[in-house]
Amino acid sequence: MKTILVLGAGRSATSLIEYLIKNSMENDWVIRVGDYDESIAREKCHNSSRAEAFQFDINHPEQCSVEVGKADLVISMLPAAYHPMVARQCLSHGVHLLTASYVSDEMRSLDREAKEKGILLLNECGLDPGVDHMSAMRVIDKIRSDGHELIGFESFTGGLLAPNERADNPWDYKFTWNPRNVVLAGQGIVKFIQEGTYKYIPYQRLFRRTEIVHIPGYGHFEGYANRDSLKYLDVYGLRGIRTIYRGTFRRPGFCRTWDIFVQLGATDDAYYMEGVGEMTHRSFINSFLSYNPHDSVELKLAHYMRLELDGPEMHRLRWLGLFDETPVGLDKGTPAQVLEHILKKKWTLDPDDRDMIVMWHKFDFMDSGKHREIHSTMVAIGDDPVNTAMSKTVGLPLGMAARHILNGNIRLRGVQIPIVQEIYDPILKELVEEGIELVEKEIE
Amino acid sequence: MKTILVLGAGRSATSLIEYLIKNSMENDWVIRVGDYDESIAREKCHNSSRAEAFQFDINHPEQCSVEVGKADLVISMLPAAYHPMVARQCLSHGVHLLTASYVSDEMRSLDREAKEKGILLLNECGLDPGVDHMSAMRVIDKIRSDGHELIGFESFTGGLLAPNERADNPWDYKFTWNPRNVVLAGQGIVKFIQEGTYKYIPYQRLFRRTEIVHIPGYGHFEGYANRDSLKYLDVYGLRGIRTIYRGTFRRPGFCRTWDIFVQLGATDDAYYMEGVGEMTHRSFINSFLSYNPHDSVELKLAHYMRLELDGPEMHRLRWLGLFDETPVGLDKGTPAQVLEHILKKKWTLDPDDRDMIVMWHKFDFMDSGKHREIHSTMVAIGDDPVNTAMSKTVGLPLGMAARHILNGNIRLRGVQIPIVQEIYDPILKELVEEGIELVEKEIE
Repeated sequence: MKTILVLGAGRSATSLIEYLIKNSMENDWVIRVGDYDESIAREKCHNSSRAEAFQFDINHPEQCSVEVGKADLVISMLPAAYHPMVARQCLSHGVHLLTASYVSDEMRSLDREAKEKGILLLNECGLDPGVDHMSAMRVIDKIRSDGHELIGFESFTGGLLAPNERADNPWDYKFTWNPRNVVLAGQGIVKFIQEGTYKYIPYQRLFRRTEIVHIPGYGHFEGYANRDSLKYLDVYGLRGIRTIYRGTFRRPGFCRTWDIFVQLGATDDAYYMEGVGEMTHRSFINSFLSYNPHDSVELKLAHYMRLELDGPEMHRLRWLGLFDETPVGLDKGTPAQVLEHILKKKWTLDPDDRDMIVMWHKFDFMDSGKHREIHSTMVAIGDDPVNTAMSKTVGLPLGMAARHILNGNIRLRGVQIPIVQEIYDPILKELVEEGIELVEKEIE
Repeated sequence: MKTILVLGAGRSATSLIEYLIKNSMENDWVIRVGDYDESIAREKCHNSSRAEAFQFDINHPEQCSVEVGKADLVISMLPAAYHPMVARQCLSHGVHLLTASYVSDEMRSLDREAKEKGILLLNECGLDPGVDHMSAMRVIDKIRSDGHELIGFESFTGGLLAPNERADNPWDYKFTWNPRNVVLAGQGIVKFIQEGTYKYIPYQRLFRRTEIVHIPGYGHFEGYANRDSLKYLDVYGLRGIRTIYRGTFRRPGFCRTWDIFVQLGATDDAYYMEGVGEMTHRSFINSFLSYNPHDSVELKLAHYMRLELDGPEMHRLRWLGLFDETPVGLDKGTPAQVLEHILKKKWTLDPDDRDMIVMWHKFDFMDSGKHREIHSTMVAIGDDPVNTAMSKTVGLPLGMAARHILNGNIRLRGVQIPIVQEIYDPILKELVEEGIELVEKEIE
C-alpha cells in the first residue's frame, strides 16, 4: 500500500483528488487530503474508503513533517510560496513532490540534494505550466529527431467560457481561475523575439497589441503576450530561434475593453484607495477621471478613452454595472482589489456556465530549405461550474504523473519540469482517454 | 571662528559654496568643502583663504566622524540615502545639519534625539522642496491669521530653459538638473484632491492629463501632476481642504511628446535590454514597435501613437535624432538609461543656454462667504550654464539658513522642514536681494 498526500483541496484540486480516488483500488493507494478547512477536504473525498480528509495548517511545520513522513508521494496544491518548505520536508523524509507551479529560484536550489537522495521534485505539471510544456516538447522533439530546424514557436492558452447561446455576456468571459491573477495579468514588461529582433511591450500598450487567431470549429480568439517568452529559450533549448512568443487567449473585444481598466489605473495593486467604505461602482470609476461637475461619468470616460458612447466597449462596461451607484462592498482595497470585487459580481460561473480551455501552438520549421508549419490545438470544455475544464487540465496531469512515478515508469530525479519524453508521452496519451487531446496538423 | 562643513561639491553646490565664501569674512567662518573628486571641491573654493577643499569619501565613516567633529554646522549635498548616516554623526558630535532632500523615515526617527541634544536637522531647504514650502506657507499663514478659510491650493514648479530666440529647440527643454530624475519622473501613482474628491492618475495617462497655466510676461506652461499631493495635507496642515494639487511645469507640447516615450516603454528602468552594445537610436525605438519588414520605423511609430507624420511630436523626435542609425554608445542599460543617454546628446546646456526656474502657487480661500484667489509667482533665470538658476535657488536657501542658525536667529530644534515663519521669513527676504522673489498678487 502506498500513501499519496494532497496538500490543499481547493477548487483546483477537484479533478486531481477524483482521479486519485478512482485509481486507488487498482494501485493500492491511500489518499490523505489536508486542507486548512477540513470540511472542504472531506467533501472532495466523497466518503471514499481509500481517502482520508484532515485539517492541515502549513504554518505548523511539525504537522507538515509528520504528514510528509507518512507519505510515499506529496502533491502540493498550496500557494506557490509554500512549495520550497514542503520540498525540504520531502527531501528529509525521502518523498517525491509534485506541484503545478513555476520553479522558483529557491526550488531550483534543491536540485543537487534531490538528485543525491534519489528524489523527484516535479513542478509545472498542471495546465499552463504543464500541458503546454508537454505538448510543445512532443512536437519540438519530433521536428528535431526528423532532422529539421525549428525557426519559430508561438503558443497561446486561454481559460474561457464555452459558447452558450442562452448567455447574455458581451465579454464572453468569466473568472474560471484565480481572479486576482486575471486582474493583475501582464503587469511588468513583456519580452519576446520576432524574426530575430528582441521586442518589448509595456503594460500600458499590452492589451492594444493583440493578435487574432482562428481555430476551426471554435472561431476567433484574441491573444495578448505573456510577460517573459525569453525564458523558454533555455527551458525548451531554443537559443537561436527567430521567433518566440507566448500569449493568452481571450475572445475578440475583451482586450480593447480590458485596456480601459489598465489606462484608468484600475488594475493598480500598489496603493490603497481612500474612502473605499463609501465607494460605489460609479465613484470608483470617477476617481480615475478628471473633475467636472457638469459631465457624466459615462461621457468623461468615453471622451478620455476615445470610445463611442454606444459602442461595444461602453456596452461591456455598462453590463458590468460599473456606472451604477451600487456600493462596492469592501472596507478597504487597492484599485485592483476593488475592481476584482466588482467583476466577481458578474464574472462568477452560473450553474448554466461551462468553462473552456483553449491551447494553441504554432511551429515553423525548415525541412531541406522548405518552410513548413504545424499547428497543435487543444480545446477542453468543463462539465459544470465545479468540474471545470480548468480543474481537469490542471489536476489530471498531476494525478497521472503521480501514478507513473509510484509505478516506477518515471525514473527522473531532481528538480524537473515535464519536458522530457519519459514524462510527457504517457501523460499526453492518458489525457486523450479523458477527452483532453492536442491535435497536431500540418498547415499546407 | 565657526566651521561650516559642505559634503559634496557637484553642480548643485556651486551657488551655495559661493554664498558661504562671500559671507565668510563678515561672519568669521571657515568653509571646508569635501568631495570624492578633490579637484571639483578645489575648483568651487576659488582659492579663497576662507575655504579649504579636501578629498572626502562617505564610505569611510571614520573620516566623516573626524570632519563632522571639527564643524559647527554641516550641509550635506550628498545623495539623499547618505543623509541619515551623516545625521547620526551630527548627533554624536552636537552639530547642526542642513539638506535639500526630502525627510526620509530614517531621518524622521532621529527627531527626539535631536531635540534632546538641542540639534537642528533641517531638511527640504532647497528649491523644491524648499522655496516651495517657504513661499506657500507664508501665504497660507497670512490667509489664516486674517481669519480666512483656505479651500484650494495648487502649486507647480519647473526647471526649464530661458527663452532664447537663437535656439532651435522644439522641446523648449534641456536637462538643467539630474537627468535620471527627469526620465523617471511620474512613475508610480499620482494622487490629489479636486473639489473634495480623491483623484488618481496612473503613469500611463499622466502626460495626457496636463493643465495649462499662463504667467504674464512669461507665456504658457503645461503642468503635469506630481506623485503624492496628499502628503501635503499633513505637512502644511490642510486636512479638509477641497482641492490640493502639486505639479511640474514644462513648455506646451513637451508632455504630449514625452508621453510617446512612456507609451513605448522607453522610460522603464526595471529590466536590462538585450544587445545594447550594437543598438542605434533607431533600433532602440524599433524594439518597442511591432515587427514589419516593409514599414519604416517612422510610420510604425506614427501609426502606433496616432501622430501626424509631419506633426510637432514627430518633429521633436526627429530633432533628437531618434530615427538615426547613430550608435547609442552604451554597453548595457535599461530602456530609461538608454533613453537618458540619447537625450543627453541634445539636452545638455550650450554656452548660449540659460536655465529658468518657474514656481507658481494658486490659493483659493473664503473671506466672509466670498471667494478670493491669490497667485504667487517666481521666475528665476540663470547667469550661464554653470551659475544656473537651479544652483542658486537650491543653494542659496541652504546658505542663508546656515547663516541664521549660526547667528542664533533660528532656534528651532529637531528634524524640521522650512514651514515655520522663524525660518521662511528671513530667507524669503534675503532671497529678494539675490533677485529671487515670489510675487504675490490677488486675482480679481
